[in-house]
Formats: sequence, structure tokens, C-alpha cells
Amino acid sequence: MPSRLQAQIDFILEADRLKQVLRQSVLTDRSRRENDAEHSWHLALMAIVLAEYGPAGCDLGRVLQMLVVHDLVEIDAGDSFIYDEAAQASKAEREQAAARRIFAMLPEGQGARLAALWEEFEARESPEARFAAAMDRLEPLLLNFQTGGATWRPNGIRRAQVVARNRPSLTEGAPDLWAFAEHLIDEAVARGYLGADATRGE
Amino acid sequence: MPSRLQAQIDFILEADRLKQVLRQSVLTDRSRRENDAEHSWHLALMAIVLAEYGPAGCDLGRVLQMLVVHDLVEIDAGDSFIYDEAAQASKAEREQAAARRIFAMLPEGQGARLAALWEEFEARESPEARFAAAMDRLEPLLLNFQTGGATWRPNGIRRAQVVARNRPSLTEGAPDLWAFAEHLIDEAVARGYLGADATRGE
Repeated sequence: MPSRLQAQIDFILEADRLKQVLRQSVLTDRSRRENDAEHSWHLALMAIVLAEYGPAGCDLGRVLQMLVVHDLVEIDAGDSFIYDEAAQASKAEREQAAARRIFAMLPEGQGARLAALWEEFEARESPEARFAAAMDRLEPLLLNFQTGGATWRPNGIRRAQVVARNRPSLTEGAPDLWAFAEHLIDEAVARGYLGADATRGE
Repeated sequence: MPSRLQAQIDFILEADRLKQVLRQSVLTDRSRRENDAEHSWHLALMAIVLAEYGPAGCDLGRVLQMLVVHDLVEIDAGDSFIYDEAAQASKAEREQAAARRIFAMLPEGQGARLAALWEEFEARESPEARFAAAMDRLEPLLLNFQTGGATWRPNGIRRAQVVARNRPSLTEGAPDLWAFAEHLIDEAVARGYLGADATRGE
């Protein structure tokens, strides 16, 4: 077998490990936690269905490529819970090291191209990266709402934390979907899925 | 919330059920069976990495959209094991009924567009559908080889069955990858992961 194809197949087999990286999110039927591979698929489906809410000039094909590769670094770096400040602080370094190892498995030019796509996603500057990031924020909101706050409640998460973590990406990447998300967050508080904001003196 | 967005969100939540549809394939670490959502993600990643082996004029963005939606019908129809002839016989009808229900959840024009994409995949005529189908064949071969025939061995599958099921799609959609797959199949027989072909009188 040509060594180029061998390297590509080795990368594809290594990527299988993403199916074992568990996220905090719980499936809609509450049966188990979601893994990174199925999460990445769900974001890609959302991008197809919600493309009309994305920034002008956003290339859906590039969004899909970005979403498919965006979590590969978590094979080494693991999932960092978005409300875990210690994990968030060390995340960038752990993920950079993972990217160096994982994308280097591919033939040189191809590995560099996929690494660049991942870096573009992380930088949140291009229309595609902003829309992809908006999908990455909206999906766990939907799963949390649908499961009665399965991730929020055990972690004592409050409304202001969810707004702080989600508003920037959603307003940048899909403003109409932020309006929807904000409504969902308020409804989650009303139903007791998510803590209300602390009042003065609390 | 606008009813258009509501329909889209309802579809996205319904799609979450694909994470619960189990396939026959086993993950590379042999820990459990693969589900349709993570399988769809893996095919999309393969299409990105192996695009250079696809037919001329193949649009990768369309391939990715097709792969992301190609198994949604299995939410209702279930996974049909490729070597189960009874399941294969009733598959088309079960999947057509599923497509009618699932894609109709979306706003009209959008549902029709995604249903057409699924039908294009099923018809195996466009370059994108042929390449997508090649990925759908190659992934379980890789997983089977990597797990020592985890699906082949318990089902007593033989070389000729694997060749008959995989050669047409792979030669049409990615001929260089068929050459690789054929080598993999022969090696699987040599290692005892897959049954040799029956000899005369057997």
C-alpha cells in the first residue's frame, strides 16, 4: 500500500477514539452522556438545517469540514466542561499539543490543511468559524433544555453563567438564534431547569 | 418563536435519536457497537481525508451533506445488517416510509431538499453519491479488520460475501480504494478474521 494512503488510513482509525470521549451533555432520552463523535455529527446536521441564520458569505461546505474536525484534539486533551474554570484555563495548551500530534499523522500538506481548519475554528474570526461556533453553543443548550437541565442542575449552574458563555458566540455567528436561545434560557429558569441569577445579598 | 424555526428545532431534536440506533460494527477498541450518528461522522471525516480518491468533479460539500443525512431514515427503519438478506429485502420500503415522516418535519422546501439528497445517495448515480457510498462501505471493512473480524466471525461471513457487497460501490466510487480494500480482505482471510471462500464439494 502506498505510504500516503497508509498514513490516511492510520489517521482515520485513530479518529475512531473520538467516539469514546464523553461530554457533559446527556442525550434527549436521558439514557447516557453524549460522545464527541456523535456531537460533531449533530452540529453538522444543525449547520445544514440552520444555514439560513448564518453570516452572509458563509460557505456551508467549509463549515461542515470545520465541524467534522473541530473536536479531534479532544482524543488527547479530553472534553473540557464549559463551566469548569480550571479546565478552561489549561485547555488551549492541551489542545495545541494534541493538534500537533494528531494532524501530523496525515501526509504533510493535508495535515497542515486540517490543522489550519481547526485553528480557524478556534480563532472565531471567519464567517464559517463564527457560524460553526454558534452551532457548538446551541446544541448543548437544546440538549440541556430537553432533559430538564441534566447538566445544569447537578452542577448548580445559573442563568448568568449560561448567558456569559453563549451570548458572544451566538450573537456573532447567528444573531436570530441568540434571540431564540435567550428565550429558551429564560424558560429553563422558569421551569427550574437552570438556577435564577443571584439577587443582591444572596 | 417563528413556526419555521420551531419546525427546524423539532427536527434537530428528533435527529438526536440517531445516536441510539446501533449498527453491527464494533469500535476499534472492541468496547461496544457503533451507533449511526458517530458512524455518519466517521464517514464525513473519511470523505475529507480521502477526497483525492473520489470521482472527477465530485463536490466535497455535497458529499458531506449527503453523509450527514444518509442514515436519518434509520431512526424509524433501524439498521439493516448488510449480510441479512431478509432485512435487505424489506429495507427500501421501510426506509421510504421513514423518509416521508422524518423529512416532512422540516419546512416544506427544506424537507424536500434533504429528502432529494437522501434519494440521490440511495440512487448511487451522481459522483457525490458514488463517493459517499464508497465511504459507507470502506468504514465497516476497516472496523472489522481492526477488531479481528468482530462482525464477520460471529456471523460466519465468507470472503465472497464481503467482495460481492463491497466491490461494486468501491470500484464505482473510489477505484484506488477498492484495490486497498481487496488487499485488506485477503489479509483478513489469511489471519482468520474472515472465512475463506467455499471450495468445490464443501
